[in-house]
Amino acid sequence: MLIVQKFGGSSVATLERIRNVAERVLATQRTGQDVVVVVSAMAGETNRLIGLANQLASEGDAQTGRANKGPYVASERAGDRAHERELDQLVSTGENVSAALLAMAIQNAGGRAISLVGPQIGLQTDATYTNARILGFSHGRIRQELTAGNVVVCAGFQGLNAAGNITTLGRGGSDTSAVALAAALKADACEILTDVDGVYTTDPRIEPRARKIHRITYEEMLELASLGAKVLQIRSVEFAMKFGVPVHVRSSLNESEGTWIVSEQKSLESAVVTGVALDRNEAKVTLTNVPDVPGTIASIFGVLAGADIVVDMIIQNASRGGSTDVTFTVPENDLKKAVAGLRSLDLPGAGPMDILSDPDICKISIVGVGMRTHAGVAATAFEILGRENINIQMVSTSEIKVSVIVHERYGELALRALHDGFGLHEGPTSSAA
Amino acid sequence: MLIVQKFGGSSVATLERIRNVAERVLATQRTGQDVVVVVSAMAGETNRLIGLANQLASEGDAQTGRANKGPYVASERAGDRAHERELDQLVSTGENVSAALLAMAIQNAGGRAISLVGPQIGLQTDATYTNARILGFSHGRIRQELTAGNVVVCAGFQGLNAAGNITTLGRGGSDTSAVALAAALKADACEILTDVDGVYTTDPRIEPRARKIHRITYEEMLELASLGAKVLQIRSVEFAMKFGVPVHVRSSLNESEGTWIVSEQKSLESAVVTGVALDRNEAKVTLTNVPDVPGTIASIFGVLAGADIVVDMIIQNASRGGSTDVTFTVPENDLKKAVAGLRSLDLPGAGPMDILSDPDICKISIVGVGMRTHAGVAATAFEILGRENINIQMVSTSEIKVSVIVHERYGELALRALHDGFGLHEGPTSSAA
Repeated sequence: MLIVQKFGGSSVATLERIRNVAERVLATQRTGQDVVVVVSAMAGETNRLIGLANQLASEGDAQTGRANKGPYVASERAGDRAHERELDQLVSTGENVSAALLAMAIQNAGGRAISLVGPQIGLQTDATYTNARILGFSHGRIRQELTAGNVVVCAGFQGLNAAGNITTLGRGGSDTSAVALAAALKADACEILTDVDGVYTTDPRIEPRARKIHRITYEEMLELASLGAKVLQIRSVEFAMKFGVPVHVRSSLNESEGTWIVSEQKSLESAVVTGVALDRNEAKVTLTNVPDVPGTIASIFGVLAGADIVVDMIIQNASRGGSTDVTFTVPENDLKKAVAGLRSLDLPGAGPMDILSDPDICKISIVGVGMRTHAGVAATAFEILGRENINIQMVSTSEIKVSVIVHERYGELALRALHDGFGLHEGPTSSAA
Repeated sequence: MLIVQKFGGSSVATLERIRNVAERVLATQRTGQDVVVVVSAMAGETNRLIGLANQLASEGDAQTGRANKGPYVASERAGDRAHERELDQLVSTGENVSAALLAMAIQNAGGRAISLVGPQIGLQTDATYTNARILGFSHGRIRQELTAGNVVVCAGFQGLNAAGNITTLGRGGSDTSAVALAAALKADACEILTDVDGVYTTDPRIEPRARKIHRITYEEMLELASLGAKVLQIRSVEFAMKFGVPVHVRSSLNESEGTWIVSEQKSLESAVVTGVALDRNEAKVTLTNVPDVPGTIASIFGVLAGADIVVDMIIQNASRGGSTDVTFTVPENDLKKAVAGLRSLDLPGAGPMDILSDPDICKISIVGVGMRTHAGVAATAFEILGRENINIQMVSTSEIKVSVIVHERYGELALRALHDGFGLHEGPTSSAA
């Protein structure tokens, strides 16, 4: 039996907590399992290091007249490979420190442990600094240390590119590190130990009757990103799905079972609806008098793509007299950029295009693999919202998801109504609650 | 032209100082030289990291009942390889941070730079954690980065052993890193930039008329360790001597020439006496009634060697009636350990051996390669001290050094008298002062 346990920054924020993690790791090892641990930097350390770099850059640039503001991935220095390479060399030290300290704590508690950092771990990535993709993994060293009876403590968040330079996997990258190691080592499970005790049917701060989900499929977890994002990095779920790694999200503070993220085959539940998510960070853009000629839509969304704006829902109305309306949603903090980009757009033919934007909207999504087999889920959702007199502005559906756009003011009401209407507080997994 | 510049922790203690270092490095590069920089951790960082480890260990041990008190090399955990390996993984991150920050600062100032850490530098060491010895160096990566027009910023103090684990070179190891890189890269010079502007004929705090030495030989520098230790790690001088690397100790705060440490051939000066050093950290031990039989001395100093006590001066008086007296000096903070060790010693034959110890002594050394060719230097020294009525307790001489032990209270007087008596304040290098 081999298990990969990932502990986030809050779990190793202090020496006291590091000692607790050491005890927990040893307890796991005593159950007869080999243990590979992946740690993040001590809480606050990554930001401290990035702060040093940005301070250095901004003041340095103040001298040379250039401007440079944080955060570390999105800045005018993004794309400056030499600069980003140094950022990765810099921030990766945060994980190196916590890895070495945890290894020592395990030794102090009487166990055997060794910490491995970037080049020693064997995680090969592409050369995209600050947000690298994992390409491969050579686990000779980890295997060897496990055979020697060690708990292997790996610095998370980092890899090595072909040129031997340190790369980082982007914020929350330690989750991806853990899943990648679990996949490569064919671990029996990847435990994500965090400060919440699992994934819930919805945000408990909005709906107190939200239930902890016992098992959820990778697909559902991805669709519920806005719930999951608070718990683990979504990229790690894609990775887990790709390699079929069972992921167990649970609390680092207690022993109780958390939420298992598994393949549909392994998912015993087939709830029609597994969870309801609310996403407030969306804004709506409507274009009227859009010349209804081939290529128009392409050039509109080409402008947005060129500005790195991720468009979510798109609706195009039927054409009226040679022109049509197009409505879509973008992340709220990209709204200004989107509108500016569209203004600059010079479309062939027809009169001026009107651009209406509305930040006061939100997206409610109900997710469940059961939708594949149960008809009328969308209709039921509309009915539930109708009873609450909530006007639906946009709709989009996928195989296992129904999303609606409503006015921001009705967001929480809509979420509670749907959570209640689909009986999530009393669902099949209530036993696991 | 290739130059290696080493900047200590105080030179990179703040972002402001790091920017100054960046400017200086670029200025050096603009003179048409390739520049390899070696940096220490930001002042205080290494101690902070060691503090974390010791805190973790001591509190951890408080739980398991073991004791473990700082400092990081000398502790009950010394020799615990797994623990020391983690210490090296931990403390080496300090240099990694300053190296990355300096590389960024150089980039911000418009230059090209890349930072290299442990595995990337190519410094191969033995497996002695916390105090590793350099075995070899593969400079492919550094050459390649220099060819690409980069200032290469290397994290000092660290190497890699054959198993791919990070090792550190002991306190002040960055000096040794710099000299080793300079030797391997056949650099034209190794500059040690620090917060003093060179090596002086003696400690200016004791003798205000002390003069900055323009050139000094490796041998003299080694003999003047107690002067040099404040300026650079003595091991780095041994390394420089072995490979004939010209070392230039100068201030990081101004452009003025400092002190060149060179081979005797290159040393233009042949002062009879180059410098005078005072070492307060010695203690004297006298053994009386030592049975004068073969092997006795061996077993006495065997005990001390076994306790890792470095014995400096040794005097054995002529035998009187089958027994003799032996006097020697040890580091003052090893005195207790030495006496305890000797008490436990059970010598064959003869009566009980008396052990007299005296911590209130100090050692004055006058050093100069000129002694080889000038007779009577020792006699002159004794005469100078005699004029001051300073009683000489012990004497030892080497080819280029005369050391005397006097009562601690006369140390500074003796130093000033010798500095004056040999005319060091007006020596041949006064031109360079």
